[in-house]
Amino acid sequence: MGNVIVAQSGGPTVAINASLAGVIEGAIASKYDKIYGSINGILGIKDDNVIDLGQIVDSDPSFLSKLKTTPAMYLGSCRFKLPSADSGDPIYDLLFKQFEKYGIDAFFYIGGNDSMDTVDKLSAYAKTIDSHIRFVGIPKTIDNDLCVTDHTPGFGSASKYIATTTMEVIYDAQIYNSPSVTIIEVMGRDAGWLTAATSLARNEYCCGPDLIYLPEVPFNTEVFVNDLSRLLKEKTNIVVAVSEGIRDAKGEYISASTGQLDQFGHAQLSGAGKTLEYLVKDRLGIKCRSIEVNVLQRAAAHISSLTDIEESVLLGKNGVKFAEEGITGVMVIVKRVSNAPYTVEYSHATIHDIANEAKEVPKEWINADHNWVTDEMLEYLKPLVLGEPTLEYKNGLPVYVQR
Amino acid sequence: MGNVIVAQSGGPTVAINASLAGVIEGAIASKYDKIYGSINGILGIKDDNVIDLGQIVDSDPSFLSKLKTTPAMYLGSCRFKLPSADSGDPIYDLLFKQFEKYGIDAFFYIGGNDSMDTVDKLSAYAKTIDSHIRFVGIPKTIDNDLCVTDHTPGFGSASKYIATTTMEVIYDAQIYNSPSVTIIEVMGRDAGWLTAATSLARNEYCCGPDLIYLPEVPFNTEVFVNDLSRLLKEKTNIVVAVSEGIRDAKGEYISASTGQLDQFGHAQLSGAGKTLEYLVKDRLGIKCRSIEVNVLQRAAAHISSLTDIEESVLLGKNGVKFAEEGITGVMVIVKRVSNAPYTVEYSHATIHDIANEAKEVPKEWINADHNWVTDEMLEYLKPLVLGEPTLEYKNGLPVYVQR
Repeated sequence: MGNVIVAQSGGPTVAINASLAGVIEGAIASKYDKIYGSINGILGIKDDNVIDLGQIVDSDPSFLSKLKTTPAMYLGSCRFKLPSADSGDPIYDLLFKQFEKYGIDAFFYIGGNDSMDTVDKLSAYAKTIDSHIRFVGIPKTIDNDLCVTDHTPGFGSASKYIATTTMEVIYDAQIYNSPSVTIIEVMGRDAGWLTAATSLARNEYCCGPDLIYLPEVPFNTEVFVNDLSRLLKEKTNIVVAVSEGIRDAKGEYISASTGQLDQFGHAQLSGAGKTLEYLVKDRLGIKCRSIEVNVLQRAAAHISSLTDIEESVLLGKNGVKFAEEGITGVMVIVKRVSNAPYTVEYSHATIHDIANEAKEVPKEWINADHNWVTDEMLEYLKPLVLGEPTLEYKNGLPVYVQR
Repeated sequence: MGNVIVAQSGGPTVAINASLAGVIEGAIASKYDKIYGSINGILGIKDDNVIDLGQIVDSDPSFLSKLKTTPAMYLGSCRFKLPSADSGDPIYDLLFKQFEKYGIDAFFYIGGNDSMDTVDKLSAYAKTIDSHIRFVGIPKTIDNDLCVTDHTPGFGSASKYIATTTMEVIYDAQIYNSPSVTIIEVMGRDAGWLTAATSLARNEYCCGPDLIYLPEVPFNTEVFVNDLSRLLKEKTNIVVAVSEGIRDAKGEYISASTGQLDQFGHAQLSGAGKTLEYLVKDRLGIKCRSIEVNVLQRAAAHISSLTDIEESVLLGKNGVKFAEEGITGVMVIVKRVSNAPYTVEYSHATIHDIANEAKEVPKEWINADHNWVTDEMLEYLKPLVLGEPTLEYKNGLPVYVQR
């Protein structure tokens, strides 16, 4: 058999390099010959920016184990959308000539919706020219909003980071004996999965966030102020988790007025957290702070989930296996078999069923008051954050693979 | 001998509970009898909000080890400034009656400048009434701006978190092959120590931040834009670390205009990071993102420095030892003996020498271009972030002591 090529695309997660390691391990164990990596997504194939991953593995015995816990994307990313497969666009001819040049039998694309769209189009085009090349997508997104798969690689690690962060913010918020509200704004424009993960911070030693608001249900500022007022009669320091994507009943984002310009003439738009901070100060007149969980929610490899990392490796390995079996135009998926003990199996699904639909949090996993999650959500989340990879440290910092 | 009482005050750090554990361990091994904890700083003594820490240790064998890596403040905090010791204020009479009631021979206050001020005043008052009670301060501040001591507990862990975060942000920033600037804003209004710690992210596998700006030298936006333009000719993705406290030559903070009001009528003030983000977009017209490192820089116990934790424990223990020796009105300090191997010794200093002066980064530890740090700074920082405490995890999250 011929060679394989693998690329990464879209935004980073902590687990996307684990899937790359899985593809490499799978390919080493397969009938395939060389393992190429394309730099900056599919652009590397187009522009001959291709590296020999097998050579790198041979030259550094610790490469694969370090790669599994290295954040972001070893091969770099791109934002490149292919024209439709029947467009007659010369890019297809170019790409398939390049595949031929590198002797490619299978192409693996680790990414989100756009990357799956690319896999879909390349496999459709391959069909029209009777190409033997297999195209397999391997998912990743911290947002967990892909359909068909039980969950997405990167979500478990992001959840672990967010739950830990929430817990530490709660400890921080509780030190003074005077009323305060702390608002944690979590990523997730349309789906509340990551915000829901803050619920994991409620356990036998931490009270957890007091209120959780997801974008799947309308947000009402009056109800929010009432929720806070009621709680402030019972406890001193309130911690609230909100999704960046919360919207009012009309579907408008909760954000501060955009009418003002800064000194450089740019419109100022405050996000949900900052806007609610102003609201609390204004309406309740108490100390309030908002915290925007930054890009670390997708990059904090120093506290990734072992479950997430191991599954991501296996998704990559299974991708190679499916390609070997002649399967093409699919995305590898995880199916949850049971919660306790937590077991999953790996399968594949036609990309057309996945790429055009976003998976929101089911309404029945949000409580009746729309300010917390149900036990079903907790049971769903719990296994995904389990386990800690063994990280190598040098000079006090985690060791990652050099880009 | 009688009993001891310990309290915590000021803002939290990751190491302040380690010092509490050190005081408890020191007191257990001492001639002192009971070990009381005062809730919410000195207010607990005033209001009879006092707990028996010895009892808690006896009832939970794992309490002390967990306490050492629990963030924030187990005993809670306060912001309470005593009137001058010769003011004749009745608070002194009240506090010393309370000390008598609890049979106190020594009082330990773990905190920052305000807490040291309290220790200073209580020991001065004790002198006037010939009290036998010893007053010992144990420092903490992530800002590292206390004089006399080589460094402060909490700074090493904050540095480790900030350096790791910087590294992960750099990995995240490098994925696209198009120009970008990422600005990381770090806490530190007057002292640049924490911002300087981002320099640790430069090692053999990570390029580190490209530019570092500290508040100790004037910040010039034109020079900043030039620094960026020059670098953008050499590399694609630039990462900049700035202190929240950077000021121009006139001493004005670098912040966006305060003239505008949000929808609730509050003046909007953007910090240094956001302001520079606008500037970069405006002047260079390229993608720019600013990240405010949030309260986790003082609360991220999940990635604390073992060196910091162990030293904090020893500071607490030494505090008890000094009190036993009859020393009062002092703060325990760390003296660095050597960098390689890193060795320290513990001593004490009169609080008057410490409380009224802030320790800034020496000008000679900032490079000539005012946009990075010197090797002396790196040698100073390196030992402080070394080592990782063994954390217990349960259900995927670090286990902390319940507050």
